[in-house]
Amino acid sequence: MAEESYITMPKGFKANGVSAGMKCPDRANINPDIPKNNYLDVGLILSDTPCNVAGVYTSNLVKGHSLVRSMDIIEGGNKVRGIIVNSKNANAAVGSVGIEDANSVASHVAECASCAADEILTASTGVIGTRLPVDKITGVIPELVEGLTSDAIGAHNSEFAMMTTDTVPKEVSACITLSSGKTVTIAGQAKGSGMIHPNLATMIGIFTTDADIDSTLLKSMLKEAVKYTFNRVSVDGDTSVCDMVVVLANGASGVRIEEGSEDSDIFAEALRGLCEDIARMIASDGEGATKFVEIEVYGAATPKDANLIVTAVARSPLCKTAFFGMDANCGRILTAAGYSGASFDPEKVDIKLSGLLVYHDGVATDFDEDEAARLLHEHDIKVEIILKEGDCYDRMFTCDFSYKYVEINGSYRT
Amino acid sequence: MAEESYITMPKGFKANGVSAGMKCPDRANINPDIPKNNYLDVGLILSDTPCNVAGVYTSNLVKGHSLVRSMDIIEGGNKVRGIIVNSKNANAAVGSVGIEDANSVASHVAECASCAADEILTASTGVIGTRLPVDKITGVIPELVEGLTSDAIGAHNSEFAMMTTDTVPKEVSACITLSSGKTVTIAGQAKGSGMIHPNLATMIGIFTTDADIDSTLLKSMLKEAVKYTFNRVSVDGDTSVCDMVVVLANGASGVRIEEGSEDSDIFAEALRGLCEDIARMIASDGEGATKFVEIEVYGAATPKDANLIVTAVARSPLCKTAFFGMDANCGRILTAAGYSGASFDPEKVDIKLSGLLVYHDGVATDFDEDEAARLLHEHDIKVEIILKEGDCYDRMFTCDFSYKYVEINGSYRT
Repeated sequence: MAEESYITMPKGFKANGVSAGMKCPDRANINPDIPKNNYLDVGLILSDTPCNVAGVYTSNLVKGHSLVRSMDIIEGGNKVRGIIVNSKNANAAVGSVGIEDANSVASHVAECASCAADEILTASTGVIGTRLPVDKITGVIPELVEGLTSDAIGAHNSEFAMMTTDTVPKEVSACITLSSGKTVTIAGQAKGSGMIHPNLATMIGIFTTDADIDSTLLKSMLKEAVKYTFNRVSVDGDTSVCDMVVVLANGASGVRIEEGSEDSDIFAEALRGLCEDIARMIASDGEGATKFVEIEVYGAATPKDANLIVTAVARSPLCKTAFFGMDANCGRILTAAGYSGASFDPEKVDIKLSGLLVYHDGVATDFDEDEAARLLHEHDIKVEIILKEGDCYDRMFTCDFSYKYVEINGSYRT
Repeated sequence: MAEESYITMPKGFKANGVSAGMKCPDRANINPDIPKNNYLDVGLILSDTPCNVAGVYTSNLVKGHSLVRSMDIIEGGNKVRGIIVNSKNANAAVGSVGIEDANSVASHVAECASCAADEILTASTGVIGTRLPVDKITGVIPELVEGLTSDAIGAHNSEFAMMTTDTVPKEVSACITLSSGKTVTIAGQAKGSGMIHPNLATMIGIFTTDADIDSTLLKSMLKEAVKYTFNRVSVDGDTSVCDMVVVLANGASGVRIEEGSEDSDIFAEALRGLCEDIARMIASDGEGATKFVEIEVYGAATPKDANLIVTAVARSPLCKTAFFGMDANCGRILTAAGYSGASFDPEKVDIKLSGLLVYHDGVATDFDEDEAARLLHEHDIKVEIILKEGDCYDRMFTCDFSYKYVEINGSYRT
């Protein structure tokens, strides 16, 4: 990952973010004590030329209208020029006007940017069941398009505009040297803090690259990249209706990446690495999180068993509040593994807490409580569950459950 | 349910609860400002004569040693005289000494009560992975047996001794008139507040009856009774390693209940009703709960779909924090239904919040926010999800997620 990262680092991309007054009801009356970034709520990322595109989407049966519209465009095999994202409103569960509203937003962008409406993807995140304030959004689109820039500032603003309860921006990039010695760049940004759980795609993630890659290859790389990264982040076990991750490839580097080539492997690994970086950032910035927790299962009989256990532990409110309380209450970890539905012999299980053996062969060890307390006071906590049943592995990134989570979510809508 | 209920209301049962110093480390130094009940940590319920017994147990792969010992006795078809329960320590995940410790406790009771050790069931609840303080417990067993009484006070003390983070005792009873005009009595008590989720049996529940019923009939009645009661309570989605519900039938009423008889139906329905009463009490007294929430699904295509949805909504931290915040954020309910794994058409779903229609055909209605706020300020909240796919129904009792839950569970062990 580069020192500073932003979505317009690949050649031929511009971005911008503006305030349509959704995060601040009265644009004329902005509180000077709040950083201006916090009011940005509409972001746009645009390529100078049409891009091949691939996407992965939420598995939730209920899908937001902006998302459904983007899925139709991407899965229809179309090339796209860019994506407009708004926060504060999910454009979900409002009926047939939802698609019309998304179309209307995209048409306005297309008009200002001189392209076709179906070349503009739409993404919305925020409250469900309230109609998108289309007039507010279309009212700022001229300003949004006018201000597009390839500088870092426009890119950062587009990221701020996507953020909801996120407390830090999540931006990554990599400049990759291919076998020929030529380079291509990939950059990415994401929002995601609550309502996050792995179930095919999570949160909103946008990647850009100047590599020249076909959509089908891009799609298979993306699907592989999200598997153990975005699909292994759990903040609260909830899967939202708006999640998607897209990659836009505009070919502006002039460097072609063919399927089955060594370069394809290099690119895929770089994309996977960036997805992992963002996945870790999302778990660390989970709503109210004070801890980053990585759960690993070793030695499961089947991949499914390994996955059931990492999922159960990452979802368990009892485990998550114990991490918050920095309490080495490891019986809760064993308990979650036990009810996960995975098949294993509880009398063979070892559990390590940030390297400290706390359970051996299913029995609590006489571990050093002071050492455990010291390890739990670190920001990053690792839980290893060793089953000794086979050689399957899985992992999950999660965070703790704090008072702040309850506060944020007890009053999010109002 | 009777006005006052206690476990020794059926004929021929006695109970008592004492302090072995587990809830208060220094028995000599009890804080006079804390009610004495709060220090009780060992309870005993004993029948004058041997009882037929039936039990249901946690589905967790990891099972506490006291529980495993009781399962062996019950499933071995033995008659029992009673059950000793302790709180503060789960007697789980400590290795082979766990069974020995449970045996030792039971042997001491048997000696004082002049019965066989395998006529005494054992149940333990509390922290996992720490050895049971056997000496403390056996040291108070003479006092415990000596003080056995059929009065309400002994019964209440045995209930207090089971409680962990429960804030109220949970006791029920029913006097049933059978077809012959004769009466039998059933009574029950339970502990359970956190680590509760339906997965075959939950928490610790003990029922007594003076009816004369065979173990096999009792078992089939109990299994049926817990299905939509104890197995439909979720506080936090966690399933403990110590859960069990047992029924002891000593026949002291002299009234025989035969399989397939009308009386059998009357008795089964009374038992089911008492299980439901306790299930509601447990959800209401969920750790940190400020709300009792009943989730109902109507019109599902299959029973499994109905169950997946009630489970997903009851587990969703986002829904539960919204109930705590009294926020009519019903998009979260639709979202949870959508990711539950159930099959349904999101565009046909209606959702009612305590009777108020908030979603119609998958679209948020223009409901009265003041009315919604008023309904959410009630202690009891009902969520009805109507799918219009078929005629299957399910329900779940749950509670909200509060700051207090985080506080209790961030510091439970230490």
